[in-house]
Amino acid sequence: MFTRIDHVGIAVENLDEAIALYDRDYDLKLVHRETVEEQGVEAVLLDVGENHIELIAPLGPETTVAKFIAKNGPGMHHVAYQVEDIEAEIARLQEAGIRMIDRVPRTGIRGSRVAFLHPKSTAGVLTELTEPSKDHH
Amino acid sequence: MFTRIDHVGIAVENLDEAIALYDRDYDLKLVHRETVEEQGVEAVLLDVGENHIELIAPLGPETTVAKFIAKNGPGMHHVAYQVEDIEAEIARLQEAGIRMIDRVPRTGIRGSRVAFLHPKSTAGVLTELTEPSKDHH
Repeated sequence: MFTRIDHVGIAVENLDEAIALYDRDYDLKLVHRETVEEQGVEAVLLDVGENHIELIAPLGPETTVAKFIAKNGPGMHHVAYQVEDIEAEIARLQEAGIRMIDRVPRTGIRGSRVAFLHPKSTAGVLTELTEPSKDHH
Repeated sequence: MFTRIDHVGIAVENLDEAIALYDRDYDLKLVHRETVEEQGVEAVLLDVGENHIELIAPLGPETTVAKFIAKNGPGMHHVAYQVEDIEAEIARLQEAGIRMIDRVPRTGIRGSRVAFLHPKSTAGVLTELTEPSKDHH
């Protein structure tokens, strides 16, 4: 079961300019900032009620997100659904015929456990499951 | 104040195939279906906790969403933030220097009142404010 939209991931070229828009102009609260070397991004989380916006900026031109921006321009990058038991959800989706990039969860932002669905199975939407750490449920 | 992510709007080529993915495979509950002639789409809403996924399929090749799909492929189209007083939010954003497409709210899906921000102000993210009807808050 997907319990809510955990976050929308937004690819940005300049993190400070994006923070000015989301934090200052939209008045969303910036709650976390982290460099995720494995994914080649610097990322921040902002609260929108119980949901989040995740702004991600590429660490260098060879990263996946830099290539995404080069191809599509900055903008919406992925949607993440919150789940309570990520292994059970991965198993359930695979039974439904969905192809997973991650058949085993890996560590995401702020200590979450995450798994991405394969875009071939999701009609063009990069889709993530995320089980938040107990501190940030 | 943005109180939550109301929905993520996803442009799809075939509404029934998309419903099979979101309703049957993801197990989200389909709660609404509507033809929005003014926006040139047939749209459905699915619940994800208190948030929604809005699947939108173009009614014809000359519609905005058909052109979006022709250019970008199917995928994430817009993000909508829920607000309690849309006139107050429009005024607040304009004071912050944000350009609005809709300076006056118009009717959106399921009786909501909506207003779009101008993409020039949002770093590539088509962004909507939505004040739900009292029946669907």
